[in-house]
Amino acid sequence: MLKTPVIVLNMKTYSESTGKNALDIAKIMDKVSIETGINMAVSVQSVDIKECSEKISIPVFAEHIDPIKPGSHTGWVLPEAVKSAGAVGSLINHSEHRLKLADIDYCISRAKELNLDQIVCSNNILTAKAIAALSPNFLAVEPPELIGGDISVTSANPEIVSGSVKAVKKVDDKVKLLCGAGVKNGVDVAKAIELGSAGVLLASGIIKSNDKEKVIRDLVSEL
Amino acid sequence: MLKTPVIVLNMKTYSESTGKNALDIAKIMDKVSIETGINMAVSVQSVDIKECSEKISIPVFAEHIDPIKPGSHTGWVLPEAVKSAGAVGSLINHSEHRLKLADIDYCISRAKELNLDQIVCSNNILTAKAIAALSPNFLAVEPPELIGGDISVTSANPEIVSGSVKAVKKVDDKVKLLCGAGVKNGVDVAKAIELGSAGVLLASGIIKSNDKEKVIRDLVSEL
Amino acid sequence: MLKTPVIVLNMKTYSESTGKNALDIAKIMDKVSIETGINMAVSVQSVDIKECSEKISIPVFAEHIDPIKPGSHTGWVLPEAVKSAGAVGSLINHSEHRLKLADIDYCISRAKELNLDQIVCSNNILTAKAIAALSPNFLAVEPPELIGGDISVTSANPEIVSGSVKAVKKVDDKVKLLCGAGVKNGVDVAKAIELGSAGVLLASGIIKSNDKEKVIRDLVSEL
Amino acid sequence: MLKTPVIVLNMKTYSESTGKNALDIAKIMDKVSIETGINMAVSVQSVDIKECSEKISIPVFAEHIDPIKPGSHTGWVLPEAVKSAGAVGSLINHSEHRLKLADIDYCISRAKELNLDQIVCSNNILTAKAIAALSPNFLAVEPPELIGGDISVTSANPEIVSGSVKAVKKVDDKVKLLCGAGVKNGVDVAKAIELGSAGVLLASGIIKSNDKEKVIRDLVSEL
Repeated sequence: MLKTPVIVLNMKTYSESTGKNALDIAKIMDKVSIETGINMAVSVQSVDIKECSEKISIPVFAEHIDPIKPGSHTGWVLPEAVKSAGAVGSLINHSEHRLKLADIDYCISRAKELNLDQIVCSNNILTAKAIAALSPNFLAVEPPELIGGDISVTSANPEIVSGSVKAVKKVDDKVKLLCGAGVKNGVDVAKAIELGSAGVLLASGIIKSNDKEKVIRDLVSEL
Repeated sequence: MLKTPVIVLNMKTYSESTGKNALDIAKIMDKVSIETGINMAVSVQSVDIKECSEKISIPVFAEHIDPIKPGSHTGWVLPEAVKSAGAVGSLINHSEHRLKLADIDYCISRAKELNLDQIVCSNNILTAKAIAALSPNFLAVEPPELIGGDISVTSANPEIVSGSVKAVKKVDDKVKLLCGAGVKNGVDVAKAIELGSAGVLLASGIIKSNDKEKVIRDLVSEL
Repeated sequence: MLKTPVIVLNMKTYSESTGKNALDIAKIMDKVSIETGINMAVSVQSVDIKECSEKISIPVFAEHIDPIKPGSHTGWVLPEAVKSAGAVGSLINHSEHRLKLADIDYCISRAKELNLDQIVCSNNILTAKAIAALSPNFLAVEPPELIGGDISVTSANPEIVSGSVKAVKKVDDKVKLLCGAGVKNGVDVAKAIELGSAGVLLASGIIKSNDKEKVIRDLVSEL
Repeated sequence: MLKTPVIVLNMKTYSESTGKNALDIAKIMDKVSIETGINMAVSVQSVDIKECSEKISIPVFAEHIDPIKPGSHTGWVLPEAVKSAGAVGSLINHSEHRLKLADIDYCISRAKELNLDQIVCSNNILTAKAIAALSPNFLAVEPPELIGGDISVTSANPEIVSGSVKAVKKVDDKVKLLCGAGVKNGVDVAKAIELGSAGVLLASGIIKSNDKEKVIRDLVSEL
């Protein structure tokens, strides 16, 4: 299982993080993680899972899995397939890829069957609490209005982090909480940990920067 | 552009065609295509595109692309990503992954922008005609009730093939028609060509067989 | 708020429960409820809400609301609209109309704003627990494989009822639980109450019967 | 069948056009239509179909139907139900409620079975041409970027109207074309007719105005 505290980089589907670019960023994360001893992980597009997981040592996640078993499901993301390509887990229900409740439940159970880590995303405290009832091993709270923005959730809405930590623990205290949206530097990461989260999930803060290594090093500077 | 007549194998998400198994089947297709000179192609899960396209010489297709541009679309299938992984085209709107009309239009235009072949699937003559109006380079007609079954569309419903050929030509005579559903042997393939199609799309007939090479060789035996 | 114990009839979209037929069945429910003093309610198609709520005295529910506010949402079900037509509440996330988790949360909050009762459906104990975290006033557990069948959930899977009651109370003890799927007679209803539920949700057991009044009377015979 | 030229008002789900408000606007349309002899129709929310169709004489449409037959489809819009409530047709595939291609085909065929008019919406010339292949009796082209705006499609993009008329006629010359998006006054309506359309589809131009009757009268002033 993913070790915490952890910094998880979600590559999304930016040009700057597709194919060779994804691998290049993943290698920087890998290098900085090894050098600093801080746990890091990346979630990459399906097409990039195999190469990234072969060439870096930190954990590689899928960005999504579909609620299916092997069979006739042309074009959907089979949990077994991301596993066989080298992923150790998957994001589930990201704000940009929301799922029906019954499908979140099914994706979590399929991931558990395959020993894949589950980072299930929620948009507020109430849905975080609801997801906690499904007992994924990780849960990430990200207010959608702050995703991709310049202000970190830890400054703009620290209550959503501490409130989610509290709500989630009450329902299932084995679920570890990550937070995300607008996270960009070491202060944001340190604050996330202080608020009770086990790490951060971020994307544009690294991917859209001109000096990715500098940003990545800064992220861990206060830990 | 995909050369015709062509046999396209859709790997779907079967256990027998995921990861290493997908590559093994793709290699047999590759070998038989080279030996016989008959055009073949495979559509594979996103995770398998890169390795398959590196290790075989016949065209590799994605099973699906999403109607998106590069950006914040966690977990969706970016057309640029399948291209960068080595795919030369994609299935679009497969019966197991149907799309909204406006999204089919957008996927076709995105694929054209990226010089990716488009095999757009339809479920009957009317929707084939509708898709022809969008001018993809390929269109595959597959009656959903025959997909995965034991009787070939060419025997069960030859009129849907000849009717689609006729309807499509009337709207846009540059669109090439494939047919599929239940196709299993050389007689079925020969009949498909005779009915006016430029090839076949098939899946379980090969993937679920115990002797895949034998089935693949049989498929081209009447051409 | 809906009084309990209660028998809720979901009209679905059967021919036998559309338009005038819906009204006829609703009138029988109304009559038997008044005569016996047992609480009953009906959920009807959007088109039938207004007339049913004008002509019967028992509560009328919508079968679904969409996660929207007033505005440009052609063809979706506006919570304000079902309220203005006379509904006192709505089913949300029925097995035949599943919603994304964030949308269930939003539908519940919109319904509360409008003082509409919420009967949120779940397919198993875990999703019941997740929904309880969102604090609707009612929650209905219905195993999808038993819906429309001949064996009542109270016989086939009593543990899902008692387990849901327990799980839900633990998360929010103000949420009242209904159960459904295969419920057909007074013994089933009595058993549902005995297992801790506050009522039943049923459909085909009444709607597909030749003598609807007899079935309705039988349902309350053991209370 | 809807007589042309026609002005169709889509009520959408605005507060100003829900419940009693919908009926009030529908009555003004009805009055002006009778007085001027210009064909008009309204599409209203499901909950409002019955009362509007009982109290006005101009045709009432549903805003949407789902691709279903009578049965177990809780909360979906059954074509038979909107018919039994008094609708004479339905919008299908509105930009705010897009459907899968196969479902558009199925909705059209279900509507034809029930003798309901079909106004199928398209977002551009290519999808208009695709929809024409399915032979609905009406097709409405509305560029989504102009919907709800201040500039009429007939000024901002007259080519999309004339181009759609031409493309549609080529595929099936029995399909009548409407156009919409930003239509607000008599000049816009007259221009729409001049460009070859058989009428207009509009919404906010009437619904958001303070003097609805004045706007409605103005719309027909140049015919």
